[in-house]
Amino acid sequence: MKKLKIGIIGGSGYTGGEVLRILAFHPKVKITYLTSERLKGQKVSQIHPNLRGLIDLDFSSINDIKDKVDVLFICLPNGVSMNYIDKFISLADKIIDCGADFRLEDDKVWLNWYKIPHQRPEYLKKFVYGLPELNRERIKESNYVAIPGCEATVSLLTLYPLVALDLIKPYPIIIDAKMSSSQSGKNFSLATHHPERTHCVRSYLPSGHRHTAEIEMFLSKINKKIRVDISATAIDMVRGILVTIHCFLKKEIKEKDIWLAYRKYYKNEYFIRLVKQKTGIYRYPEPKILWGTNYCDIGFDIDKRSQRLILIGAIDNLVRGTAGQAVQCLNIMYNWPENLGLEFSGLHPI
Amino acid sequence: MKKLKIGIIGGSGYTGGEVLRILAFHPKVKITYLTSERLKGQKVSQIHPNLRGLIDLDFSSINDIKDKVDVLFICLPNGVSMNYIDKFISLADKIIDCGADFRLEDDKVWLNWYKIPHQRPEYLKKFVYGLPELNRERIKESNYVAIPGCEATVSLLTLYPLVALDLIKPYPIIIDAKMSSSQSGKNFSLATHHPERTHCVRSYLPSGHRHTAEIEMFLSKINKKIRVDISATAIDMVRGILVTIHCFLKKEIKEKDIWLAYRKYYKNEYFIRLVKQKTGIYRYPEPKILWGTNYCDIGFDIDKRSQRLILIGAIDNLVRGTAGQAVQCLNIMYNWPENLGLEFSGLHPI
Amino acid sequence: MKKLKIGIIGGSGYTGGEVLRILAFHPKVKITYLTSERLKGQKVSQIHPNLRGLIDLDFSSINDIKDKVDVLFICLPNGVSMNYIDKFISLADKIIDCGADFRLEDDKVWLNWYKIPHQRPEYLKKFVYGLPELNRERIKESNYVAIPGCEATVSLLTLYPLVALDLIKPYPIIIDAKMSSSQSGKNFSLATHHPERTHCVRSYLPSGHRHTAEIEMFLSKINKKIRVDISATAIDMVRGILVTIHCFLKKEIKEKDIWLAYRKYYKNEYFIRLVKQKTGIYRYPEPKILWGTNYCDIGFDIDKRSQRLILIGAIDNLVRGTAGQAVQCLNIMYNWPENLGLEFSGLHPI
Amino acid sequence: MKKLKIGIIGGSGYTGGEVLRILAFHPKVKITYLTSERLKGQKVSQIHPNLRGLIDLDFSSINDIKDKVDVLFICLPNGVSMNYIDKFISLADKIIDCGADFRLEDDKVWLNWYKIPHQRPEYLKKFVYGLPELNRERIKESNYVAIPGCEATVSLLTLYPLVALDLIKPYPIIIDAKMSSSQSGKNFSLATHHPERTHCVRSYLPSGHRHTAEIEMFLSKINKKIRVDISATAIDMVRGILVTIHCFLKKEIKEKDIWLAYRKYYKNEYFIRLVKQKTGIYRYPEPKILWGTNYCDIGFDIDKRSQRLILIGAIDNLVRGTAGQAVQCLNIMYNWPENLGLEFSGLHPI
Repeated sequence: MKKLKIGIIGGSGYTGGEVLRILAFHPKVKITYLTSERLKGQKVSQIHPNLRGLIDLDFSSINDIKDKVDVLFICLPNGVSMNYIDKFISLADKIIDCGADFRLEDDKVWLNWYKIPHQRPEYLKKFVYGLPELNRERIKESNYVAIPGCEATVSLLTLYPLVALDLIKPYPIIIDAKMSSSQSGKNFSLATHHPERTHCVRSYLPSGHRHTAEIEMFLSKINKKIRVDISATAIDMVRGILVTIHCFLKKEIKEKDIWLAYRKYYKNEYFIRLVKQKTGIYRYPEPKILWGTNYCDIGFDIDKRSQRLILIGAIDNLVRGTAGQAVQCLNIMYNWPENLGLEFSGLHPI
Repeated sequence: MKKLKIGIIGGSGYTGGEVLRILAFHPKVKITYLTSERLKGQKVSQIHPNLRGLIDLDFSSINDIKDKVDVLFICLPNGVSMNYIDKFISLADKIIDCGADFRLEDDKVWLNWYKIPHQRPEYLKKFVYGLPELNRERIKESNYVAIPGCEATVSLLTLYPLVALDLIKPYPIIIDAKMSSSQSGKNFSLATHHPERTHCVRSYLPSGHRHTAEIEMFLSKINKKIRVDISATAIDMVRGILVTIHCFLKKEIKEKDIWLAYRKYYKNEYFIRLVKQKTGIYRYPEPKILWGTNYCDIGFDIDKRSQRLILIGAIDNLVRGTAGQAVQCLNIMYNWPENLGLEFSGLHPI
Repeated sequence: MKKLKIGIIGGSGYTGGEVLRILAFHPKVKITYLTSERLKGQKVSQIHPNLRGLIDLDFSSINDIKDKVDVLFICLPNGVSMNYIDKFISLADKIIDCGADFRLEDDKVWLNWYKIPHQRPEYLKKFVYGLPELNRERIKESNYVAIPGCEATVSLLTLYPLVALDLIKPYPIIIDAKMSSSQSGKNFSLATHHPERTHCVRSYLPSGHRHTAEIEMFLSKINKKIRVDISATAIDMVRGILVTIHCFLKKEIKEKDIWLAYRKYYKNEYFIRLVKQKTGIYRYPEPKILWGTNYCDIGFDIDKRSQRLILIGAIDNLVRGTAGQAVQCLNIMYNWPENLGLEFSGLHPI
Repeated sequence: MKKLKIGIIGGSGYTGGEVLRILAFHPKVKITYLTSERLKGQKVSQIHPNLRGLIDLDFSSINDIKDKVDVLFICLPNGVSMNYIDKFISLADKIIDCGADFRLEDDKVWLNWYKIPHQRPEYLKKFVYGLPELNRERIKESNYVAIPGCEATVSLLTLYPLVALDLIKPYPIIIDAKMSSSQSGKNFSLATHHPERTHCVRSYLPSGHRHTAEIEMFLSKINKKIRVDISATAIDMVRGILVTIHCFLKKEIKEKDIWLAYRKYYKNEYFIRLVKQKTGIYRYPEPKILWGTNYCDIGFDIDKRSQRLILIGAIDNLVRGTAGQAVQCLNIMYNWPENLGLEFSGLHPI
């Protein structure tokens, strides 16, 4: 069988590296090129040391690309791909953009959160929001997919069934996110310097998290009154996100009803696992056992004193939060089994 | 000047070790004994290796104690000291209890949260809640002080001025606490085994945290409608707590008003620092730079979209959260400078 | 094609869990049972949380096993399997023992290092030392394989070519091993309690490391004068070993000659990578990018002042150091591609 | 009593910050200024967040300094202070240089290891090597002190008594150093980026460590044949060094003889502790319990198979390895108690 040709734009960063790692073992694709303007000509395995001996490829410049590929994965910083979108479209039949540029539907909302005018608002409607379990049909039919942000991914997967079944109040919905260092990418600074960043419990975004925009965009299709309040705290972890979502039940219900809500939406989903054990250590979701995997683990607790519902969601931000979800979308777009290339189970202990 | 004689009951644990470390350098006291039934006769420095060469003392059994001391520090697991309180009172003029047994005023509330009947409810009124900045006058006049729980300490210090000035709604007040491993003490289990506990972001108490009781007890003196909802997550850290408190402003106010509220209560407090910088890495409180110190650092942010007020409090759970606060109370009880023996500034980088 | 039937004895520990994880995705085998006397009847995924939703299996008791399997993996503490070896042999055609009991050839050497008499010395000659790259032919022909210790694995793979080509002096050969917490298994104690074990740089075995015996046994087949001196230091890491081996060149040679020595032995080996870059961050082997993989990365440096040769070897102790190597041996025993089920590339960043 | 006036040159880095932290609580000195050309005019506590509320000082430019101080602490990168030494000498009576520029006695040795010509070799003889326990008399008489490197400090303190008493062979003496991230200072890069530097066990200097020069300089005064071979491995730790020194006994001796050797030199030394316990967790030195302290803990083991002597030394690189040792030298120069300002005991657990 002829393999699908893949190009990766922006291959030197963490997202590009993860897309590369996953696709290198994907049985149905072949990586045609991987670009980095800065590292043009260098060996890929010097930058992604886990791929030593596995990938014999040099970084290319985008200017050297002649031939079209089937699918282009774009792994660029926010605000960059919208400036080159025509070029990218000329290079491939399908585009999977891992950045934020085409996630929102409304350029005024973009401006409000990203503080720069959107350069190509006409494309916002052409891209589909790439959240597989909740938007599968549209992804299947689309050529252009925008992968959700990592924090939005885990928050939406965790919240959606409860909002859809109208079990929780539309506000307050407080997302207290515990974040790892890889989510801000490869750009180093004093803030990411090991002696400063280690052991930190850093309230880097008590308010104003940009993923608020896409979460509210997606949930408001069900309930226009929904408002989510995010606070993000960076902890001493390289990979992973845990969100603790504090919200309130509309009326007193039983644990069983929450289970049923999740089962209704995720019963047959390979990548969603409900985690709520009465005993053991790993009674609720934990990001560390998800490192390298595409799972989203979801758990919950009801605080009976206040009818507070505590939802707990965990993912690996670089896999389920970006590169793995991008490959899951690819699999959907081509009607392949959704977990192709994404079977890694995660490690324990770790 | 004659030094005060101090006894420490339960000297083998983390709290006892910290009380010992601090008092060993306190200019006005002398440690007369340190008990551990299990380690009786062993060198203290074998158990507290940081004190090698500094303290030449063996663990005693409580049965060997003959003479009264001036002050007894009790560092026992919750639910133990109430069974021996008469004995302890016979051993010293003043008692500082670092456990939970005498923190609450009402034995029905105790039963509700600790699930065992209180053995000596008549003592609940005799102990004063040892939260220095907010209860100083009562501590000064009392012989029996119960040191607040670590999570309650940082939450109360952070919330109090806003509740007292009626700036926030009485609920929801959501305390999302990030906890370290030392807070559960020296008892090891599979859950604290290094390969399991490392890298964890563990929702070990999404609801039901016992410190809820003392926080609500203390705040309800101002406003009976107050309700706090705690979720505690264990992260990969040995010392320190960070609380992110999500609450809502009663009416739109300015950042300046929050500053004023804190200044009104803490302007002259040595151990409370307001931390809210526009630039730099340490813009908000962080526990790591407080390791070994008695500070409580407090910061905040206003989420203007929702009038959510995000309060951020940080302490070292073993110092400000227990042993240091106990020594601060000792200093108050004897009218000594409040920071005597507690001057350590903390380290950076760390 | 009919799948091979596999039994795992001692499935609740870290080694058993890793054997299970790897074999669960191995295309040619099927796990028939997994034993744990203590956890009999419990769900495997409660103990190995990374396998939730992937494996639907309960722990069995060895007493309930009726039918023979093709291959038995034994994952028991040292000194246990020799007491049950007849039973195990009755249960399977082939045995792969991950413990130390059958690694040494001489029961007097066993007694000397393990301090208990060997119960079944007659089996020592029947087991083959399962170090694939250096003992492949014997593994292929054998039904009984003893997997080398983790520290011995990385040390032998790193040292062998230089000893075999007589490039280094037979002593001193100093192995300074940096060890992770998972290598001592699942048994918790105060020493492994998170507040004690975290941040440690603990000289837990400055001398007397038992793997000395197997390393010298294997190398002495080439040069009887070889002596290795091991010091093991536990660092704050869950998985992985790095050995820094200090030895001395017999005569002045060039870097190129060291390269040639390694290439002679490992040129076609999938799991051995020579890592020595002039630039970049990952210039020498590092265990973290090997987590979950079966690679052994090897590097070196020549200290020209003293003709000291510094060899650097890294593995994941639970994969290449135990479970992965066991599966690699399985693949050899059945003439399957050696990397079957072991293709995971490792993650970066991590 | 009038306090000594202190200036600190290069106050924005980790060494300058630690000198400042220690001296801020030193009863006999007053900090007159702290320079940083880049941060001139900024608040010191914004850069050293642990000193918030404790120090009200702005960074100065060296160009604004008018008045002489009693002592100048120089905390500049290697190779800088030699270019400004005349200026510095004009600013103070005494100079304590925390950098490498004046540690070596011979400018040819400097050139050999630091690869740039020494600009002012005539000053090399004027500076005294500031290793208190082994060079106290010369420090006392000198106005110019060069503080040893961190790795040299712990290695020399650990090795000296055995070399002086001629108990070990002059080579091989292999120093396997486990290093933390703060030792390379505040300059950030991709190599120190949290996702890259975390979990690393990085052989960053298998050979060629510059501190070799000062260690051999100091030991060769006793035995000209001494040669030390250093390999340095960076581990996931912010503060601290552990050296594992592998050397060989000249003749078979008993443990007791090693104890006697250390006692002969260090019996009355406040800051040197011999750590070798038969039981407990902290049987040998460990850097973590030394964080913030000026101790050097030393332990050892004899490998009887090979007459290998394993020496284990631990310090906090920023305190005993730099700033604390500098203050210890200050105390010696003024005949103050040597531990003035350096009494902090370290924390446990941590």
